[in-house]
Amino acid sequence: MAHYEFVVLGSGPAGRRAAIQAAKLGKSVLVVDDRAKVGGVSVHTGTIPSKTLRETALNLSGWRERGFYGRSYRAKQHIGSEDLAQRMSKTFDYEVSVLEHQFARNGVAIAVGKGRFTSPHALVIAREQDGAQVEEHVTADKVLIAVGTVPYHPPNIPFNGTSVVDSDDFILHPRVPRSLTVVGGGVIGVEYATIFSALDVPVTLIDHRPELLEFLDREVIDHLVYLMRDRGIALRLNGEVERIRFAANGAPICVLADGRQVSSELVLFTAGRVGATATLDLAAAGLEADSRGRLAVDRASFQTSQPHIYAAGDVIGFPSLASTSMEQGRAAACHAFGAPAACDDQRPPYGVYAVPELSCVGLSEQEARAKGYSYECGVARFRETSRGHIMGMDNGILKMICDRETRKLLGVHIIGEGASELIHIGQAVLNLGGTIDYFVENSFNYPTLAEGYKVAALDIWNRLQAQSAQVVALHAEIPAAVPPESPRIAGAG
Amino acid sequence: MAHYEFVVLGSGPAGRRAAIQAAKLGKSVLVVDDRAKVGGVSVHTGTIPSKTLRETALNLSGWRERGFYGRSYRAKQHIGSEDLAQRMSKTFDYEVSVLEHQFARNGVAIAVGKGRFTSPHALVIAREQDGAQVEEHVTADKVLIAVGTVPYHPPNIPFNGTSVVDSDDFILHPRVPRSLTVVGGGVIGVEYATIFSALDVPVTLIDHRPELLEFLDREVIDHLVYLMRDRGIALRLNGEVERIRFAANGAPICVLADGRQVSSELVLFTAGRVGATATLDLAAAGLEADSRGRLAVDRASFQTSQPHIYAAGDVIGFPSLASTSMEQGRAAACHAFGAPAACDDQRPPYGVYAVPELSCVGLSEQEARAKGYSYECGVARFRETSRGHIMGMDNGILKMICDRETRKLLGVHIIGEGASELIHIGQAVLNLGGTIDYFVENSFNYPTLAEGYKVAALDIWNRLQAQSAQVVALHAEIPAAVPPESPRIAGAG
Repeated sequence: MAHYEFVVLGSGPAGRRAAIQAAKLGKSVLVVDDRAKVGGVSVHTGTIPSKTLRETALNLSGWRERGFYGRSYRAKQHIGSEDLAQRMSKTFDYEVSVLEHQFARNGVAIAVGKGRFTSPHALVIAREQDGAQVEEHVTADKVLIAVGTVPYHPPNIPFNGTSVVDSDDFILHPRVPRSLTVVGGGVIGVEYATIFSALDVPVTLIDHRPELLEFLDREVIDHLVYLMRDRGIALRLNGEVERIRFAANGAPICVLADGRQVSSELVLFTAGRVGATATLDLAAAGLEADSRGRLAVDRASFQTSQPHIYAAGDVIGFPSLASTSMEQGRAAACHAFGAPAACDDQRPPYGVYAVPELSCVGLSEQEARAKGYSYECGVARFRETSRGHIMGMDNGILKMICDRETRKLLGVHIIGEGASELIHIGQAVLNLGGTIDYFVENSFNYPTLAEGYKVAALDIWNRLQAQSAQVVALHAEIPAAVPPESPRIAGAG
Repeated sequence: MAHYEFVVLGSGPAGRRAAIQAAKLGKSVLVVDDRAKVGGVSVHTGTIPSKTLRETALNLSGWRERGFYGRSYRAKQHIGSEDLAQRMSKTFDYEVSVLEHQFARNGVAIAVGKGRFTSPHALVIAREQDGAQVEEHVTADKVLIAVGTVPYHPPNIPFNGTSVVDSDDFILHPRVPRSLTVVGGGVIGVEYATIFSALDVPVTLIDHRPELLEFLDREVIDHLVYLMRDRGIALRLNGEVERIRFAANGAPICVLADGRQVSSELVLFTAGRVGATATLDLAAAGLEADSRGRLAVDRASFQTSQPHIYAAGDVIGFPSLASTSMEQGRAAACHAFGAPAACDDQRPPYGVYAVPELSCVGLSEQEARAKGYSYECGVARFRETSRGHIMGMDNGILKMICDRETRKLLGVHIIGEGASELIHIGQAVLNLGGTIDYFVENSFNYPTLAEGYKVAALDIWNRLQAQSAQVVALHAEIPAAVPPESPRIAGAG
């Protein structure tokens, strides 16, 4: 029976990073994954394919050029499933080959099969080989559970892999339906709804909640909702899918609890994912998952209730982002082997790869209000920056929230092309303790979208000055400080 | 005779920002510009049109998609002058209307005509009106000279406005020649050479110096030179254009001092610009320009040798960037009227809108070496980030330079799509005194190009750790700290 110092279940961002980290510390490491190829949800059905799909859709549709050439502009007239599949398989093969190479280079062993516990320190890995079931037994000093999630299948939804599918089914066989219903207004649902709308597919988005993406600033979400409706996406909020029936021609029809019905060629169900822990036999390890298959951990060490068993990534729940999962995996491996982990990531950015992108860091306005801050907000519209105009952007905003007393940046929320990149400027100022004066006092390349930071900061600056000037004016004839000019279009105001 | 508290000569970024700033301070302001419409070089022949041309070229050529669809991919088969002109005139009209509106809203008066000094406090503005020459006399408490530059016309170059043109001629009547020779390897020359190469025009770039863009890091420029040659751009460095002769069919042929000859349909001369001060009668104001038409100023107050006359923008020389010109204009107006100017912009970013973009902030490696720093460098390749791969980027690097002792960031240099936006992340960390540990400890949205910062910082981090581990190993058996893993492709190493 083989023994490893570290056995990692799952090869997604958390498992992968943890495995390499432990190997760099000189430990013997085995990664177990039941897929034919390594990579986890992120490579196979999650982050990478959906972002590749997004980029492909934007390229083929000519989306980025429509601001100039009009809404009916298309770079390619007919966009079919083969267009999507070709580019995605290219990216997929590349990512997998890079990962396999990285494991090999770092001496990480890989076992293909389904892993499950037989005791807290022992596992069995089962796989089919030449038609027979093969089992391999291993023992481990430390274990990391990084198995990710699988789509939740509620009993009232008749998944059939063809006209009613979950997001994992869908991305493995992407196609362009004549019409699409997306059930679930979370990150995945909003991404797919907007991507297919960019391909001019009629889309209906159904969610049982009254609002989309609750963790984002409401003003930014209002902007998103406006754009989605403007694009023709039908939103059915407060809409509970009671059942799905099929028309005579086989087309699925979602029947909502309030009697509304939505018919389309394809239903994509994205409402919820559950931890992929059902087959791990957690009880044998002395562990128990919650009702959604998730494991509770100490959020500093990533230890489960069994101190030698760690869990990281989507299987421990929010935020379920590839970027934070990597950091969790690294921190878990460092803790497991007594190495210092320089992980100071208090306020990570969040990215939603919808069309357009959304991204945020720090507090939203509603959170700042709930926490009792005395705050001020500023907003920049990208179409008012020169680069936005040059690129033909007719939408997108950058919203900034700061503390009125200390002027420190509290949060940045962006919707618009490039949001997921631009957010890191605000993240740096936020996490290094900067104030809105940083944006006022420093110059930005011209023309750029990043100038939106300056516009939003000046929006706040001018408002704070006006307010303090009023206060001063009550007491004495002291002239107020000079508001620097906004850079809206070449720096004039 | 009208009197103004502030007369501003020129309505480019520096003049415009200064005028609005002074108006906000309650001063009477007159802007003088001899163009039919306001805006200065930036709107008419500089920053805005050339960036619009660039964006148009990238869209029409399908440049961004070639990584996936191959080098011969074109979004539009034939790209003609009318394609360029249409989009540029749209952007141009918009920018001008925004500026005129801004002046009107802030109560800034505009005089169309050529301004010149008659005494240190008096000017005359001359213009043609209904066929007659009209002169208007004004006096001013303070004056700002922000007239910008005009292309330098050396006597040995036979400019004819058709086949031998300067960059101002060219952008006013853009066209797609069958072949192009660009003389001058500065910012403008490199931008046009690479933009037209993206349109598959055969391009030759001639410069008398041995290297391009001397203010940028050599490793980044080496990357640029490789890409330019790879695209088929012929570089003729150390190449002095002695004269231009014309072939029988009228095509211009550049004859170099060493005998080399370069023939093309069009010669675009970008070698140098001179301050547009020749017609200002500076002597009447008690001022004198240098041999290149430029004015010397105090770089903190922007005062010329006449304390009530200021100069800002391209007319005072380096760096001649729209972004810094705006800050100079604002600082000059604030100083002129005794207002505090919160201008702390010690290390602005520089952007070159070539294909691909280049941008930098802080020190280059050669500067760090010259200043005697003990430094370390790290490099990330964008094709090694997941987003770079998804976007089909096959080139581009991010280079980071830090102080070995303090670990503080000294400089960032980027070549690649999005460089001018991405640089602001490094700028924030640099100007807020951050170290490379900032990039190591914080997570980045995945997938993004911004992850290049993490890859480059880890490159440095690992090298510094390895070096300190060697030192420690000489003394005791203390294990070295753990190198966190690089996020190259989903965070594995």
